[in-house]
Amino acid sequence: MDFSHSATAADYLRRVGDFIRAEIEPVEADYHRTLRESRDPWVVLPIVNQLKARARDQGLWNLFLPDTEHGGAGLSNVEYAPLAEAMGRSALAPVVFNCNAPDTGNAEVLVKYGSDEQRSRWLEPLLRGEIRSAFCMTEPEVASSDATNMAATAVVDGDEIVLNGRKWWSTGVGHPECAFVIFMGLTDPDAHKYQRHSMVLVPLDTPGVKVERMLSVFGHQDEPFGHGEVSFTDVRLPLSAVIAGPGRGFEIAQGRLGPGRIHHCMRLIGLAEKALELACARATDRVAFGKPLANLGGNRERIAHARIAINQARLLVLHTAWLLDTKGLAGARSEVSQIKVAVPNTALEVIDMAIQLHGAAGLSDDFPLAAAYTGARSLRLADGPDEVHLNLVARYELAERS
Amino acid sequence: MDFSHSATAADYLRRVGDFIRAEIEPVEADYHRTLRESRDPWVVLPIVNQLKARARDQGLWNLFLPDTEHGGAGLSNVEYAPLAEAMGRSALAPVVFNCNAPDTGNAEVLVKYGSDEQRSRWLEPLLRGEIRSAFCMTEPEVASSDATNMAATAVVDGDEIVLNGRKWWSTGVGHPECAFVIFMGLTDPDAHKYQRHSMVLVPLDTPGVKVERMLSVFGHQDEPFGHGEVSFTDVRLPLSAVIAGPGRGFEIAQGRLGPGRIHHCMRLIGLAEKALELACARATDRVAFGKPLANLGGNRERIAHARIAINQARLLVLHTAWLLDTKGLAGARSEVSQIKVAVPNTALEVIDMAIQLHGAAGLSDDFPLAAAYTGARSLRLADGPDEVHLNLVARYELAERS
Amino acid sequence: MDFSHSATAADYLRRVGDFIRAEIEPVEADYHRTLRESRDPWVVLPIVNQLKARARDQGLWNLFLPDTEHGGAGLSNVEYAPLAEAMGRSALAPVVFNCNAPDTGNAEVLVKYGSDEQRSRWLEPLLRGEIRSAFCMTEPEVASSDATNMAATAVVDGDEIVLNGRKWWSTGVGHPECAFVIFMGLTDPDAHKYQRHSMVLVPLDTPGVKVERMLSVFGHQDEPFGHGEVSFTDVRLPLSAVIAGPGRGFEIAQGRLGPGRIHHCMRLIGLAEKALELACARATDRVAFGKPLANLGGNRERIAHARIAINQARLLVLHTAWLLDTKGLAGARSEVSQIKVAVPNTALEVIDMAIQLHGAAGLSDDFPLAAAYTGARSLRLADGPDEVHLNLVARYELAERS
Amino acid sequence: MDFSHSATAADYLRRVGDFIRAEIEPVEADYHRTLRESRDPWVVLPIVNQLKARARDQGLWNLFLPDTEHGGAGLSNVEYAPLAEAMGRSALAPVVFNCNAPDTGNAEVLVKYGSDEQRSRWLEPLLRGEIRSAFCMTEPEVASSDATNMAATAVVDGDEIVLNGRKWWSTGVGHPECAFVIFMGLTDPDAHKYQRHSMVLVPLDTPGVKVERMLSVFGHQDEPFGHGEVSFTDVRLPLSAVIAGPGRGFEIAQGRLGPGRIHHCMRLIGLAEKALELACARATDRVAFGKPLANLGGNRERIAHARIAINQARLLVLHTAWLLDTKGLAGARSEVSQIKVAVPNTALEVIDMAIQLHGAAGLSDDFPLAAAYTGARSLRLADGPDEVHLNLVARYELAERS
Repeated sequence: MDFSHSATAADYLRRVGDFIRAEIEPVEADYHRTLRESRDPWVVLPIVNQLKARARDQGLWNLFLPDTEHGGAGLSNVEYAPLAEAMGRSALAPVVFNCNAPDTGNAEVLVKYGSDEQRSRWLEPLLRGEIRSAFCMTEPEVASSDATNMAATAVVDGDEIVLNGRKWWSTGVGHPECAFVIFMGLTDPDAHKYQRHSMVLVPLDTPGVKVERMLSVFGHQDEPFGHGEVSFTDVRLPLSAVIAGPGRGFEIAQGRLGPGRIHHCMRLIGLAEKALELACARATDRVAFGKPLANLGGNRERIAHARIAINQARLLVLHTAWLLDTKGLAGARSEVSQIKVAVPNTALEVIDMAIQLHGAAGLSDDFPLAAAYTGARSLRLADGPDEVHLNLVARYELAERS
Repeated sequence: MDFSHSATAADYLRRVGDFIRAEIEPVEADYHRTLRESRDPWVVLPIVNQLKARARDQGLWNLFLPDTEHGGAGLSNVEYAPLAEAMGRSALAPVVFNCNAPDTGNAEVLVKYGSDEQRSRWLEPLLRGEIRSAFCMTEPEVASSDATNMAATAVVDGDEIVLNGRKWWSTGVGHPECAFVIFMGLTDPDAHKYQRHSMVLVPLDTPGVKVERMLSVFGHQDEPFGHGEVSFTDVRLPLSAVIAGPGRGFEIAQGRLGPGRIHHCMRLIGLAEKALELACARATDRVAFGKPLANLGGNRERIAHARIAINQARLLVLHTAWLLDTKGLAGARSEVSQIKVAVPNTALEVIDMAIQLHGAAGLSDDFPLAAAYTGARSLRLADGPDEVHLNLVARYELAERS
Repeated sequence: MDFSHSATAADYLRRVGDFIRAEIEPVEADYHRTLRESRDPWVVLPIVNQLKARARDQGLWNLFLPDTEHGGAGLSNVEYAPLAEAMGRSALAPVVFNCNAPDTGNAEVLVKYGSDEQRSRWLEPLLRGEIRSAFCMTEPEVASSDATNMAATAVVDGDEIVLNGRKWWSTGVGHPECAFVIFMGLTDPDAHKYQRHSMVLVPLDTPGVKVERMLSVFGHQDEPFGHGEVSFTDVRLPLSAVIAGPGRGFEIAQGRLGPGRIHHCMRLIGLAEKALELACARATDRVAFGKPLANLGGNRERIAHARIAINQARLLVLHTAWLLDTKGLAGARSEVSQIKVAVPNTALEVIDMAIQLHGAAGLSDDFPLAAAYTGARSLRLADGPDEVHLNLVARYELAERS
Repeated sequence: MDFSHSATAADYLRRVGDFIRAEIEPVEADYHRTLRESRDPWVVLPIVNQLKARARDQGLWNLFLPDTEHGGAGLSNVEYAPLAEAMGRSALAPVVFNCNAPDTGNAEVLVKYGSDEQRSRWLEPLLRGEIRSAFCMTEPEVASSDATNMAATAVVDGDEIVLNGRKWWSTGVGHPECAFVIFMGLTDPDAHKYQRHSMVLVPLDTPGVKVERMLSVFGHQDEPFGHGEVSFTDVRLPLSAVIAGPGRGFEIAQGRLGPGRIHHCMRLIGLAEKALELACARATDRVAFGKPLANLGGNRERIAHARIAINQARLLVLHTAWLLDTKGLAGARSEVSQIKVAVPNTALEVIDMAIQLHGAAGLSDDFPLAAAYTGARSLRLADGPDEVHLNLVARYELAERS
């Protein structure tokens, strides 16, 4: 058993960390303030493009992509995981390194299942960071925790595919550079449960596609990416827009889940580390009743519990990443669900503790804590609510007995 | 021991409940949507004034005020408490019945400590619902959990009082009808610890008073009331603006704490009840994996825990209100701190459970749950953070031994 | 709403409290040590009979019994509740005042449903404290959380009833003065679900009744009462032994549940108060790192949380007792289940905190805390596990919606 | 990063697992019953010696000992850790493999610090499994969480050392084969804080040593090992009995802490796994309300949470073991305290859940769960209470900032 990073991972980790500290952290507060105070926050501020260019020049680009043929760094999940953690400390970093969701997942889908045409037209600019994308799966009218509830349709009509339905929580769809979405819909209700659905690549400007509104998460809209409600009304595309052909939606969805959840969870661990750092700084610097907050009541115990919880959560994700690398998704299914439950809840506890130590300031935009909280909170629901994952973990646990 | 409401309380409770159901709940969703979509949400929509007029006509007005001479309803704390709970179910109700904080606390201060002039000029329009007010105590630069940290000054200069300093989380200061604030500052650093501070009635248009910005709570600004950061720069007022005279700030602050916390807590219980109702509705109506959510996993247990927690919290507040009525603040000091810890945390658990049952919709503005969460979260800090109250409760507990 | 005790309850509370402090607490440690060190702890030590005589002389006897005709004190549930709390502080007190379970429940059954013969032969000596009794319901082979699982039989055979089956967790059956048990068994599998079972009064020396063994709870046997496993093999009794006649078992069982759970819960609250007192004493007296434990880390916060939790739990039970008095079991069914979940869990948290503050000593017999913990722990299962009660609470909650 | 076991560790793990399944588990229930029912449980039952002989023959012996010169297996901490987990599943296994505390820690002390005479006379029979030993550190009269409170003395008097004081929670001192204890006492109160104490090897039959009584943990005495209170009255030994010479007590104590805590924690993880297995078996086999318990309420979620918690705890310990192996105690100090907090609490939650699923049977001796609970509970206090470790973790966390 060896808990040390590979030489490659260690080198990237040092470089990514240096970049974040030197280039991103000094401009972050300004970036958020500018955006908050601008009349239209659905824009890409110039600083973002400058940082992206610099990151790309330094080879800190598309690190999430295991594939090297299309410009990925060839890292395994367990190698990329600590980089995702480092990026999670900053709301800006993932996009600067071209590693932000859902573009990462969409890119992987196109690498694995895309046609040559889809790759040259959509994947390449995506990997160059020139366009953004979204993923349209969840629907407002049904409990999306049960994927078989999906009501939107993707019906084959001759050499076309026709999309109808309403999706929401389509993250990134508000971005001014968002050029396409991947849409999932029901194609053949009579096929086997896992062969009924298709994934379709839909240019955002296709007639019949309409972003109805942007949703708030605890009052935050996460500009300029956002989470949109999108209607699809008789959207017609050539059959070549169907990724890997009709009926393969579930198969494709499966493949993106493992790495995607590793990324989400590691970023949350970075966020929790950031919150704990802020909490320690506040606990040391702020004085009440003649003592630094650290020396009052249960504050030290809370800090210690946070440290323990983060360490446990990180190890669980790293182990899951290693399982994914060595045994594939089939050998890591329970673990992928375990991290999806454990990590957001851990992050929430740590961030909430940090908020409390900051007093009312912690609730405001003066610190990144309230925004961190809403991000972590949404991950108890996005990609499957806790309850669905717990049920899966229990199923594996009980099955091992028989 | 008798847990039934007095006839007076029961009658008001019925009437307030009827009013909320018949007049407020049907228009609430519209109200919030209109405000959200308006270019300037810092306004009083016409419906609010219509509802206020109707409530006042029906005698459902200033029910919080025990004093009958100035138009209060003469209710004890334990009688008003269930009315506060009923109003807490709706973000609109408190202002409709002219029972919203901090106007309630400010009114009580002026009833007890105000001069005739202050009463006729400020209290009367406040009780008629024509103006709003704010309370300026917490400061950005110091840990306000320790009130002796207060750095703002209220210095006597001849027959004037001069205010300097910066306050924040001044709730209500963004309201277009906000006409005055009550400011607390240090007058005599050499006096006894509890005789150093003064409370000053400051018309909002006094030169030197500036609302610097409105603060967000988890991204919510609570328009049109809001929480402001306010600077006071050489603000000069006649000595008659000092409430009850210089040096009596702490004494006055004490008096408003007991009832104020009862009101906050009971409103939170109403909010938690509302969240539990929404959770039960969702659990019954929404179907996943072929069953209503109520029949999946631990959902029923969570609903039961919520019911138990709310009932316990309500009884703790009612008992505290009764102690306040029968033994005064001196006989209820530990209990007032107990409810201040127990109730917001209980409300948060219940609301968070309701959010989870609603899926991602629960995070959005489509339901009042995310806003409810941020309101409850802020009450773990406002009026003293949990930790300060726990320390007080422990002090009483340990003292009883000696 | 009035939280003060009735004059009668207040008077009894003072007298019971004085008795416990003056007569019981000074001898308790000795009592337990003597029992622990005796070769045979299944005995009644002389001090117990002396204390019982004294309590009876002072009229502090059978206070649990609302019925005055048979020597009860005529107290309502809400009046008796604080007395049960006072008695719960001491493992000895309930038996000293002839108020210990399951004799209390058995006495109530015989008062309400017993024949004249049953009353004169069994109830009267029970109420005089001359004999003890047990209740045989739970069975080892089936999940007793579901009462319809019950497998033991009580079959009518001419003018006799024949009992067969195996019961366990029959509390009190190890007591040297235990003279009878009430046995519940299946009489008519074809009758309506709630009319299938009978309760039978079985003298312990009836042929075919055998106490197979005494069970441990976390290593404690609770001598001299104990919890027994009892087999019934072709036990034959005249039909007159059937309480209220065949098929009425569930009806009778229902009636004893409400008050019984109030008693259990209030005793647990007394136990939790005792634990909190011990914790505060230890926190004040014991020094580590140069400070009393109270001033280290989160100890004060834990003490405060314990105070809040106990107060909430007590109020929930008192309110439930009041509902039972004013609306009957039908009006308090959810609440009776609510306290059955809330109180044991609260008591466990408080006692565990007290153990931790005592260090390893808290785990030993040098303090009553470990025994208190096991008692409270068993009440998360006895009289229905948490999960069954939570389900009932949720059922009421969800039903209110329709 | 590589989470797979080394070939050596994997081989031992297979063999230890096979031995436990084939040889120990089939006789365990019998072993405990025999002991429980025997008049004198402070004995070594013949089966234990048979199993020890067999384990030794197979080379599954002293695996804990990294040193190979004295017969250890040469395993690193991270290699031994999974073996400790496997042994932790059974209360019998550690002694069968000669790997039980505190003999393991005492052996390590003698290997590192013992004189040749101490090694040949005490260490060799200990490693052959012929004698047992105890460790006398904790004292009844002072808060032992603060080691500087230690009041027992070890005073140099010419060429003798004289011991006085009272120790308790000396685990293993009740064993019939216990031949010596290691005693820690104050030698020079004027020396540097960490050079005041000495460790002395004391044959149990030395005049002046008296085992005063055996202590209970929640009613369990853990026969035949037990936890004793031991008095030392003018116990005189030659100076050669002082391990490594006077004043080196703290230095020696430090060295045993790291591995000892790894062992304790991994055994607890084995115990938690065992409890989870029992819970899953019960949840599958037992039926209530027409369904297996697994399908009722929140049971599946609880099982999933247990799986997640165990996995996190195991990884935290393994990582700490790896740190200890690669960076020494100095590089793992915070982590050693982290596991000491996290693991016992995790084990308690899992075991408590398993108890609840077993109903009242879970509280009794019919299942190993109640005993498991008391063992895990005592480890929230033994080797330093949670609070002391949390404080250390916080100190490291806050220090990293400066």
